[in-house]
Amino acid sequence: MQATSIYEPIQQSLTRVEASLKTLGSDLQFPFLSEVLGHVFDTTGKAMRPAITLLSANFHPHESRIVEIMATAVELLHIASLIHDDTVDESSVRRGQATVGSLWGRNVAVLVGDYIFAASATHVCDTGNVRVIRRFSETIMELSRGELSEMVESYGRDQTREQYLRRIYNKTASLFTTAGESGAILSGAPEDVAQGLKAYGYNLGIAFQMVDDILDFEGTQEEIGKPVGSDLAHGIMTLPAIRAVELYPDDKTIDALFRDPDDPVHLQRAVEMIQNSAAMSDSYGEARDFCAKAVDALDALPRNVSRESLEALVEYVIARRR
Amino acid sequence: MQATSIYEPIQQSLTRVEASLKTLGSDLQFPFLSEVLGHVFDTTGKAMRPAITLLSANFHPHESRIVEIMATAVELLHIASLIHDDTVDESSVRRGQATVGSLWGRNVAVLVGDYIFAASATHVCDTGNVRVIRRFSETIMELSRGELSEMVESYGRDQTREQYLRRIYNKTASLFTTAGESGAILSGAPEDVAQGLKAYGYNLGIAFQMVDDILDFEGTQEEIGKPVGSDLAHGIMTLPAIRAVELYPDDKTIDALFRDPDDPVHLQRAVEMIQNSAAMSDSYGEARDFCAKAVDALDALPRNVSRESLEALVEYVIARRR
Repeated sequence: MQATSIYEPIQQSLTRVEASLKTLGSDLQFPFLSEVLGHVFDTTGKAMRPAITLLSANFHPHESRIVEIMATAVELLHIASLIHDDTVDESSVRRGQATVGSLWGRNVAVLVGDYIFAASATHVCDTGNVRVIRRFSETIMELSRGELSEMVESYGRDQTREQYLRRIYNKTASLFTTAGESGAILSGAPEDVAQGLKAYGYNLGIAFQMVDDILDFEGTQEEIGKPVGSDLAHGIMTLPAIRAVELYPDDKTIDALFRDPDDPVHLQRAVEMIQNSAAMSDSYGEARDFCAKAVDALDALPRNVSRESLEALVEYVIARRR
Repeated sequence: MQATSIYEPIQQSLTRVEASLKTLGSDLQFPFLSEVLGHVFDTTGKAMRPAITLLSANFHPHESRIVEIMATAVELLHIASLIHDDTVDESSVRRGQATVGSLWGRNVAVLVGDYIFAASATHVCDTGNVRVIRRFSETIMELSRGELSEMVESYGRDQTREQYLRRIYNKTASLFTTAGESGAILSGAPEDVAQGLKAYGYNLGIAFQMVDDILDFEGTQEEIGKPVGSDLAHGIMTLPAIRAVELYPDDKTIDALFRDPDDPVHLQRAVEMIQNSAAMSDSYGEARDFCAKAVDALDALPRNVSRESLEALVEYVIARRR
């Protein structure tokens, strides 16, 4: 199943969500801002989070407008966090495209990120659902904790698996969880359906970030749109690095890199150590386990095309190459 | 009336608000963050916005806890916007104290600002009041628009009075408005009281920012905690500069400064031109007009000690020297 056919049951809604994202970029007193936002919205990738929101609403009859507003809020929050993330990392490229910070400067990136954060908050308020609004505000907090802990924990050779799992929950799975849960809640689905979609979002989000972290050690710079091993180069140990250290506790290549992070030779050695170990396949196995849990979480749901799409999305996440 | 006696009717609530701000700084998985937040909370000044929230609730019997949560949210939003503001301006000093960015670096400032933004949003959600939550999210948006427009409009010699008024509404008066209105709403006060306190907050906020902008051209660097004319040095025309240009349309000192903003001689000439004109006293006159409107807005309210405090706060704003 291709991404396009996965999105088949929600194509019209998704088109309206994209249109309202573009409106935010054009309906402004600042011609300058519309240019910046136009760039951002063109490079945001595959709209996976709003798709989860929209699909999760399709297990109960509902009015599509409120769910589309929520899907827009979810994507806006994702975009805002990417912009600040890239600013803090001083990334110049994301998905092969120049970042806001590299094109317009870091000040613009900080303020435009704030603006989109604010826009996401006003959108979620327009749903009028206090439970969803509260969950969304917790998600903003968790995203922020994830970013902060990445910074605080970086360059520590003792970064644990527990820290890693908490970090990827905060920075990625939290918003996936909210996407699934809020879609269900806003559709008026019964609580067991909402809990199932919440668990789906959580497990898919963890798997998605694990695959992202594995891909950071795979392929070439051209394929992944940034240097191979860029997390490690920033002092961040993701699953493949943590697994490699578990397999080879006496290996010192990562220590050497963290002591002297600007030396490309150290980075290359650490990347090769990880690539040539079982850490890569072990990590894939762990991501696959979370994918299986995501599919299991859908058990309580009625069988329909949206459930098929959610299942296909899991396949897509584990199979994706960039 | 001194600030301490102004705050007399709300002293206990204000102490609890300060305590919950400090809790956010200590109750964290990151020892590092608590140090940063501890610094921020020590330098946030006079807690005027939470005081307005708390005083505005005192025209109707109410449960203090919800209003205190709101007052905390209001102050958190103010702090978050200051942190990003200082980061974008690359300010090293605020109120004579080093800024977060200058002490810990800009990345920390971006992420800690995001964290406090998020904390303000979760606090406002804890009020459970959708009208207040929605108004708060609009305020976040307005703050962000204010910052963006300051950047977009800077170094333009044709900055208008209309742009200025819209900018200071967004960056300052919006949150003052929300402070007054939300305190009244959460206390359960009738709509005319809420509208009165909303108008009070609006007019006081405009006056407050005008006085701030006047003070930027007064006194010495030691008194105001930053260089004299720092807004103008950043290409931003505030009320005294706009008024001076209205009085002397043929004067070219500001044009010269904006063409060559790094030359301190140009800055000094522009500052002296403004200081020596009637622009300063005219600007004070305008601020005083807004103060009078703020007091008028309280007409519909019952007379009590909180109304006296709100009136005294207006006097304090127009009389303050830093």
